[in-house]
Amino acid sequence: MGPHPAVAAIRLAVRRVLHDVIAEHAEQNERAGHAPRPELARAGTGSRLGTLPDRPDTPLVLVACSGGADSMALASALAFEARKLPVRAGGITVDHGLQDGSDTRAAEVAARLAAMDLGPAEAVAVHVGREGGPEAAARDARYAALDAAAERHGAAAVLLGHTRDDQAETVLLGLARGSGIRSLSGMAAASGPAGRYRRPFLQLDRQTARTACLAQSLPVWDDPHNIDPAYTRSRLRHEGLPALEKALGKGVVEALARTAQLSRDDADALDTWAAAADRDVRDDAGRLECAKLYALPPAVRRRVLRRAAIEAGSPAGSLFARHIEEVDRLVTGWRGQQAINLPGRVEALRQGGRLVIRQS
Amino acid sequence: MGPHPAVAAIRLAVRRVLHDVIAEHAEQNERAGHAPRPELARAGTGSRLGTLPDRPDTPLVLVACSGGADSMALASALAFEARKLPVRAGGITVDHGLQDGSDTRAAEVAARLAAMDLGPAEAVAVHVGREGGPEAAARDARYAALDAAAERHGAAAVLLGHTRDDQAETVLLGLARGSGIRSLSGMAAASGPAGRYRRPFLQLDRQTARTACLAQSLPVWDDPHNIDPAYTRSRLRHEGLPALEKALGKGVVEALARTAQLSRDDADALDTWAAAADRDVRDDAGRLECAKLYALPPAVRRRVLRRAAIEAGSPAGSLFARHIEEVDRLVTGWRGQQAINLPGRVEALRQGGRLVIRQS
Repeated sequence: MGPHPAVAAIRLAVRRVLHDVIAEHAEQNERAGHAPRPELARAGTGSRLGTLPDRPDTPLVLVACSGGADSMALASALAFEARKLPVRAGGITVDHGLQDGSDTRAAEVAARLAAMDLGPAEAVAVHVGREGGPEAAARDARYAALDAAAERHGAAAVLLGHTRDDQAETVLLGLARGSGIRSLSGMAAASGPAGRYRRPFLQLDRQTARTACLAQSLPVWDDPHNIDPAYTRSRLRHEGLPALEKALGKGVVEALARTAQLSRDDADALDTWAAAADRDVRDDAGRLECAKLYALPPAVRRRVLRRAAIEAGSPAGSLFARHIEEVDRLVTGWRGQQAINLPGRVEALRQGGRLVIRQS
Repeated sequence: MGPHPAVAAIRLAVRRVLHDVIAEHAEQNERAGHAPRPELARAGTGSRLGTLPDRPDTPLVLVACSGGADSMALASALAFEARKLPVRAGGITVDHGLQDGSDTRAAEVAARLAAMDLGPAEAVAVHVGREGGPEAAARDARYAALDAAAERHGAAAVLLGHTRDDQAETVLLGLARGSGIRSLSGMAAASGPAGRYRRPFLQLDRQTARTACLAQSLPVWDDPHNIDPAYTRSRLRHEGLPALEKALGKGVVEALARTAQLSRDDADALDTWAAAADRDVRDDAGRLECAKLYALPPAVRRRVLRRAAIEAGSPAGSLFARHIEEVDRLVTGWRGQQAINLPGRVEALRQGGRLVIRQS
């Protein structure tokens, strides 16, 4: 008898990512002049090779695990698949220190990871600051700790348990910013330095991860933050999205996830265009020519202007659509406006048919 | 004392659109060889010219009015502004025949339009079919009647009362389809044959229109369909959007409306790119070359494939993202797949490095 369908689904999702990681690792080794090892050449056939000894050319894959259902399912699937493939597998849990007893809990999660044969299996304590609000601060501290752990252990990849439901929530959060399609593109399947972070469950729903934990009798921990209405994401998860599903039908989560993928591709293509246009709209001295900017499609022109503002020192995170619209009007609605102030003490002004964007 | 701020806001919104219509009309007349009339040359100065006699070169602007708050506010603003500008103003109300006494109600609305000095002031009865569901069928019948009325009276424009709230709902409805940024771009400020339909209130919220009616003591009629939970839009308006606002904050409607505008510009730019790419990826016989398609950014390639499928006879409305993805895999993941069936008896297959998309 095969595994429960939910368990089969999470394993397949992880296996696909491991194949990618193994292939990329072999490619890197080859480029670095090492001969490929026979195990690596056989990767992807699914044949049982038994646990391989630690070798420098066997990539290490870490799972980031909170102890919740999504990342416990992920850890279990990684442990299972890694036994059959030329990869080493470990796990990291981050203690955010935001709740009483969080250190004990983190130690428990690390023990569970070790019991799954994951090694290293570490709990890492972090200090969460205040910058950008509680959710952003916790997130920043968590990724910093994961980055450090990946460097310390020389990991080729860090798996994250984000599901299609998390993706849908991320798209809605982006939508609420109203800052265009890049913010609708959610989380990437691979992100971070050299694509370190991988999200195998991005096409899988949360319920599948939960069911897989139940089917494998894995104990899971429900973070009280996830149901605390003080957090935007929690409100979205428990009130916003269900209401939207009730109004629009059950396919909303899937539609939002698909929107993320399509928006990401569209935003990438337009960024490519803007990078090319950026070279074409400058005069010999490298200054932006208003007449040439005017001839661009608005979507491309606004991206060129945004690039120029960031290049001049405006922080990307503080530069909103309304700032760029105002700069755009120097090109499309010129009536002698004054210089426009942008975040980061950057100013934009029109001078003799040229657009000057500089630190003031 | 000036008018109530809400009344000032609706009038300003309508005035801007009327200036556009007048300017475009003058341009057309000039192109057709007629000399511009002094009234038209003075348009936009805001000076009171008094009611102008009907002249063939004075454009007629109709308002589509259901009797609800949004379109009653629109009708009142059109009647007010038209007195000061070289335009003629009329109104049409459509009797969908879906409720008992709808004919009496339509006659009442037409009488109110006439009492505002709008002429023609007509009630038009339509027959609503069943195709595409009750909302789409009513919409199709309504636009057909408005098109016919515009043709019959030689109207230069038809004003529609859609507000920023309607736009936000439309974006969410598009999001639920998950078919990409074109479906996120909501309603255009100008659409239809020669940009006939204009939406002056697209940047104005529904509450402003309601307040303007109150301030002018205009009787308004609340269509029971608007609160009937059998309708998707009604559920979205009364449950989905409020829940989303509760989770994400009050700026959601504005953010959705801004997303519509940005998405529209992005989709337009990518369509332009796809049209140009379409020429570059064909061989001398006009067939699509897979190697050249492969080199395009995914967002552009998918649009080229979609264009080709529509050109071959696949109906745009039935062609979903998943269809195009499957065709795309003939280019990016070729492993000898069979021909792919698309809506409208169109098939896509790969032959000798060429992609053939044709009616089967």
